[in-house]
Amino acid sequence: MRCEIVAVGTELLLGQIVDTNSSWIGERLALAGIDCLRHTAVGDNRERMRVAFTEALDRSDAVIVTGGLGPTQDDITREVLADVLGVEMIRDADVVVRIEAVFGGRGRPMPASNLRQADMPVGSHTIAEMPGTAPGLVCPVGGGGDDSPKVIYAVPGVPWEMKQMLDGTILPDLKRRAGISSIIRSRTLRTWGRSESGLAEDLAAEIERLDAVGGPTIAFLASGMEGLKVRITAKAPSDAEVDDLLAEEEARVRAIVGPIVFGVDDQTMESVVLDLLVEQGLRMATAESLTGGMIGSRLTDVPGSSRAFVGSVVAYDGDVKRSLLGVPDGPVVCEAAVTAMAANVCGVLGADVSVAVTGVAGPDPQEGEEPGTVWMATCVDGVVDAVRTRWPFDRTRIRQFTVITVLNALRLRLLARRDA
Amino acid sequence: MRCEIVAVGTELLLGQIVDTNSSWIGERLALAGIDCLRHTAVGDNRERMRVAFTEALDRSDAVIVTGGLGPTQDDITREVLADVLGVEMIRDADVVVRIEAVFGGRGRPMPASNLRQADMPVGSHTIAEMPGTAPGLVCPVGGGGDDSPKVIYAVPGVPWEMKQMLDGTILPDLKRRAGISSIIRSRTLRTWGRSESGLAEDLAAEIERLDAVGGPTIAFLASGMEGLKVRITAKAPSDAEVDDLLAEEEARVRAIVGPIVFGVDDQTMESVVLDLLVEQGLRMATAESLTGGMIGSRLTDVPGSSRAFVGSVVAYDGDVKRSLLGVPDGPVVCEAAVTAMAANVCGVLGADVSVAVTGVAGPDPQEGEEPGTVWMATCVDGVVDAVRTRWPFDRTRIRQFTVITVLNALRLRLLARRDA
Repeated sequence: MRCEIVAVGTELLLGQIVDTNSSWIGERLALAGIDCLRHTAVGDNRERMRVAFTEALDRSDAVIVTGGLGPTQDDITREVLADVLGVEMIRDADVVVRIEAVFGGRGRPMPASNLRQADMPVGSHTIAEMPGTAPGLVCPVGGGGDDSPKVIYAVPGVPWEMKQMLDGTILPDLKRRAGISSIIRSRTLRTWGRSESGLAEDLAAEIERLDAVGGPTIAFLASGMEGLKVRITAKAPSDAEVDDLLAEEEARVRAIVGPIVFGVDDQTMESVVLDLLVEQGLRMATAESLTGGMIGSRLTDVPGSSRAFVGSVVAYDGDVKRSLLGVPDGPVVCEAAVTAMAANVCGVLGADVSVAVTGVAGPDPQEGEEPGTVWMATCVDGVVDAVRTRWPFDRTRIRQFTVITVLNALRLRLLARRDA
Repeated sequence: MRCEIVAVGTELLLGQIVDTNSSWIGERLALAGIDCLRHTAVGDNRERMRVAFTEALDRSDAVIVTGGLGPTQDDITREVLADVLGVEMIRDADVVVRIEAVFGGRGRPMPASNLRQADMPVGSHTIAEMPGTAPGLVCPVGGGGDDSPKVIYAVPGVPWEMKQMLDGTILPDLKRRAGISSIIRSRTLRTWGRSESGLAEDLAAEIERLDAVGGPTIAFLASGMEGLKVRITAKAPSDAEVDDLLAEEEARVRAIVGPIVFGVDDQTMESVVLDLLVEQGLRMATAESLTGGMIGSRLTDVPGSSRAFVGSVVAYDGDVKRSLLGVPDGPVVCEAAVTAMAANVCGVLGADVSVAVTGVAGPDPQEGEEPGTVWMATCVDGVVDAVRTRWPFDRTRIRQFTVITVLNALRLRLLARRDA
């Protein structure tokens, strides 16, 4: 089964929007075990679309077209598909009813042009999922209906509409056509505290073992302040078996690099820290200098963060550090300063635990310290731990890496506290 | 002059990275007045690359290939180009020297495989810009050297290397080939406080006038908390003339929507507010609740923000609002609370001006107020202005729109103060 993606939209060619749909679909196809050999983007132009669809169909068994299904005169994917298939267009009465229902549900009058979206090539049928007003299409090619030798799918360019149709209808149909009955699924372990090459070294023997047994695969993905991700991908005939494989491989990976794994899949460093705080009934504060509020901002991105996060003192100015956080006179990028910040912010804001950071984000040196010099501290049960680091990064990454690193230090202390 | 882009890399098809290069190049080509009719992505596969390059060259006058120029065995763009052009490869002695110089400059030993990057198709020449170790290539097609009827360019997939080569060599060469001697340039006015459709209405007559005279064009681009952008694009035979056109059109647009324009091109709301503060010798603080530190974080993204920003009190918890910021007992999402926050944070942190926000980010209601209900205040010269709004957004956008809106309110007061 060979597949191609054709994205339609002059705005893609002009760079007004980036085609994230094709990469998202490409990842989904790869995970499903279906080869995708080419991505193409063309403008809203009848002849150039016709050529692109025809060529893709010549090369491949299945083509996924995104975009050009809207209600305006520019949206001509339906007409071009009919042309490529050599069939007429008909207006589908059921689709008319569905489109009218969407508008009725929103209490808005329906422009007449929206009925164009109910026109479809003869022999095609709509995709069951229809989260917007644009129906997606399944167009068998070469006769035989669902068992046709080839197929073109058309989905809207709006990402959330496209994604529902792809996961709900297109991927299952492609797997059926390809005779793939197995399930492929991934689990991502998020890590912090080891470089990508270090992690690859740690896991080299395990990856070699997996290669030999043809078992799950392991891939690394550096994701900045979201952590360094280790993705385990497994394949099995059933949901239960693939979940077993993933669980078993997760256990093996954790046996090797467990202490640096902070979360799984969508868990962030912030959500994990907040969960540990809630679990232990602790309230947290932050004292921030070079990060300017980013630690608190990230924590409060998490819905429900008010269960554990009380607030921050952002002491960007040296005088604020001294007056509000009791930092002693003298340098503010040093152990004494960060220790005072971490200890005193708990009292100022009425918190049980805290993190504190002070350092030089750059571009200029400060107090004779080079950009990237950062002191980080955690305070748990009144005891402060402080460490110094020197990031070899630019201003943005110095701040971001400081945020995740100090939160990770707190995570490790909260784990130790729980298990003590 | 018709152009196409072919991006090489299996990781693009697998969705491991999004192809932002093609959209960036597409925008640059459009601005230069060169038609780009197709984007294609193919994997690192000799035969599929050969077919994609050949087809693109058949359809177009110029093809820009990105990726596949690295030192590893996977990087085969050079070899495939030689194959498509029907010529041999030769190792270029000058390029060997340049690559060795890059490694020497970094004090690192050079792997022998890097010399593969000095191999190039006979008849092609390198692009002058070489910010990394991968040389870019200009490959004339069909004889005639620089005046060949067609051309293929090859640049690395690394964005910053690609961009330097495109702007420095490829765009000028394409414009020369296309006989385009005019300069096309854009200026972006960033606005806040009017919807996209409202702005389009305000500027409808001016856009009609420009259409009639064939003058500069105007386009809108909604960019979240970066503002709603109005991009003016002008074309003229010389730098001086295009700059005159842009200045003249900027003045016309400002005459219509001036008060909502907060910045030009790369200026952000934060950088503009900080500049106004520095200019007036004022020190600023923030008192944040639902934004959790995001206002301070954004302000301190700007290098040099310490000249005006002193810090924040992030009072996420109600008790912190009362104890540290003197918020009266009772509800914390109300005018009295936000007014106390704005006024008192100046005293707590030793600032001259402040912004304060309190509200419901959701997902749950609070104090009987629906998510999206937000009070925002500014304090300038001891006088507090407070406004209430109700955002119809999700948690993330409620927080982001609150940040830019309260900073814009401060901007307008600082402008009024300066001009008083």
